[in-house]
This record gives sequence, C-alpha cells and structure tokens, in this order.
Amino acid sequence: MQKKLYEETLKTKDIYKGSIIDVELQDVLLPNGRESKREIVNHPGAVAVICITEEDKMVLVKQYRKALKKAIAEIPAGKLEKGEKPEICAQRELEEETGIKAASLKLLDSFYTSPGFANELVYIFEAEGLRSGEKHTDEDEFVERVDVSLEEAREMIKTGEIHDAKTIYAVQVWELQKLRSKL
Amino acid sequence: MQKKLYEETLKTKDIYKGSIIDVELQDVLLPNGRESKREIVNHPGAVAVICITEEDKMVLVKQYRKALKKAIAEIPAGKLEKGEKPEICAQRELEEETGIKAASLKLLDSFYTSPGFANELVYIFEAEGLRSGEKHTDEDEFVERVDVSLEEAREMIKTGEIHDAKTIYAVQVWELQKLRSKL
Repeated sequence: MQKKLYEETLKTKDIYKGSIIDVELQDVLLPNGRESKREIVNHPGAVAVICITEEDKMVLVKQYRKALKKAIAEIPAGKLEKGEKPEICAQRELEEETGIKAASLKLLDSFYTSPGFANELVYIFEAEGLRSGEKHTDEDEFVERVDVSLEEAREMIKTGEIHDAKTIYAVQVWELQKLRSKL
Repeated sequence: MQKKLYEETLKTKDIYKGSIIDVELQDVLLPNGRESKREIVNHPGAVAVICITEEDKMVLVKQYRKALKKAIAEIPAGKLEKGEKPEICAQRELEEETGIKAASLKLLDSFYTSPGFANELVYIFEAEGLRSGEKHTDEDEFVERVDVSLEEAREMIKTGEIHDAKTIYAVQVWELQKLRSKL
C-alpha cells in the first residue's frame, strides 16, 4: 500500500534572495524514511488576462523573454506586488500593457506553472466591458500589442510565436467557449 | 515606434548549479540603452502524457509537491535526462508512473511554463494504443495512479486537487476533442 504522500522538511538552506525569485535547497524526509533534496524557487505569483475585443480578437503582447532567448506573444500578464490583490494587479497590467480598461475582471482559474520546482501561481482573469484607457508601460518595459483572431492564434501556436502555457491555455478557453456556444 | 524587442546579455553571473536547476543573474542591455537585471532558472525540460483509457478515463498521478506544500494530481510527467529524446522519456515516465505502455506517442504541443524567469519547456504527448506494462517507480518516488472522468477532472480543478498548468491544459484538450467530435 502506498504510504502517505508527504515530505517533511528537515533543513532549509537559502541559496539566493533575488529581486523577483528566491531559491532554497531543502532536505526532506520521504515516506520510506529516506532523505532527499528539493530545489525550490519561490515566486510572488502572477496574473494574466484573457481579453477578447468587440472585433472578436484576442489581445496579446509581444515581448522579449531573456530566459527563452526570443520574443513571444502572450496574454497580458504581470507579477504580483507584495500584498497586492490579484484583481487589482490584473487591472493595472492590462491597462499598462495594452491601453485597455476593463469594467470587470472575472477570475476563471488559477494554476501552478512548474510544480516540480517552483511555487509560482498564476491567476487567470477574463476581462469584461472593455473601454479605452491609456497604455503606459514602464520606461524599461518593451511590449507590442497585437490583436489576433482564433485562427491566427492557432497558427501562432504552430509557429512558436505563442509558446507559453498560460497563453496556449487562454486560446483553448476561447475555443471551448465558442464550441460550447454552438452546441 | 517600438524599438526592436531584444535584450543583449552584458554579463552573466552563476548563482547556483544544482542537480535539477541552475540559476544565473544576467545584466542585460534594454532597447532604450539602459541596463537591467534578469534572474534566470535553467531547467532541462520535461515531458507529460495525455493518456485516455478505453473506459474514457484520464490517467493521473497524485504526488506530493514540496514547492506547493501539498499533493496534487497531474498527468504523468518527468524531467528530460541529458540528451534524451522527449518521446523516449515520455514512454519511460508513463510506464514507470502508471504501469501503462503506449504503442505510440503523438506530440501535441510544447510550451514554456514560466517564460518570465525559467526556460523549462514541456513536451506534451498523447498516448495511443495502450496496453499494460509494469509500474516500477524509483524507490524514492511516491505516486498514486488515479483514473478520472472528464466531469471528475473538472471538479478536481475546482477543488484544487488538479492545480497545475499542464494538467488543466490536458483536461481542456480532452474536452475540445469531445466537443469537436460532436460538431
């Protein structure tokens, strides 16, 4: 019989305290009494927004991602500030990156991006009641808004222009909504 | 006009060389000529398998995730060994964790899980032609197989028993396939 799925922390060593992430190395006790090590990245969490315009386009932002060594198109997103409510963060990031204000944001889901080594939790919102706001990215933030149809989004997934989990998830949400409305 | 979306690396500092992840801190040159820092987690990449049984159940494995401080149910998955082909890795992980052999594995997609700070790329396969193999997890790996219906999977997303991006993505793929077949 499988023993309880749990790992007790025996020791935690701080490896790195960064501006966005922290890294720690934990000694853990496995269910079989043996010890193992866990490398863990602590992350403040993030928000992302599914935003469909009146023209039935999804709003994406292209930006360079140093970790991937390429620019990709993603749904508008951003990291949570300390103590910030996800909905407030989502409103802010959406307007900053795209110039769109949403009358309301509906929480659709939340998910961990990389449960094997990181605790980053992303809250996904759907924007409702869009109106024009003012795009005002930080002076050190470089993003290009691009609005795409579902067919264009699918093609961008094939070419790798869309290449991250939350945006592929968002395109699927959009397609599911369309299919459900036809049944 | 937006300048080119690119960041040149000026300097790289190795922060940590771990057994699974490495961490580095890069000084980068922004498009406006200013400098910034990027914290980057290097990860070997991973595979995950969407596996639907003859009884129309999705095969999940529950395991404790130290980074999340809880056990969650995920599609079978594992890290790539150095130089390993994703398909070979997927065959191995599926059989080890679930006792299922697949006659073939079809690559559905690949995505970066956390493009803001990590280069982890996950290859998603769909298992076809299932037959019984032999479950043989490492002695220090603790996983519990659980087969769930689409309705059960959706409920598990609501309760947080399913709580990671790749598994929520997988459940969507499954639902999309069902809906498309009805149209």
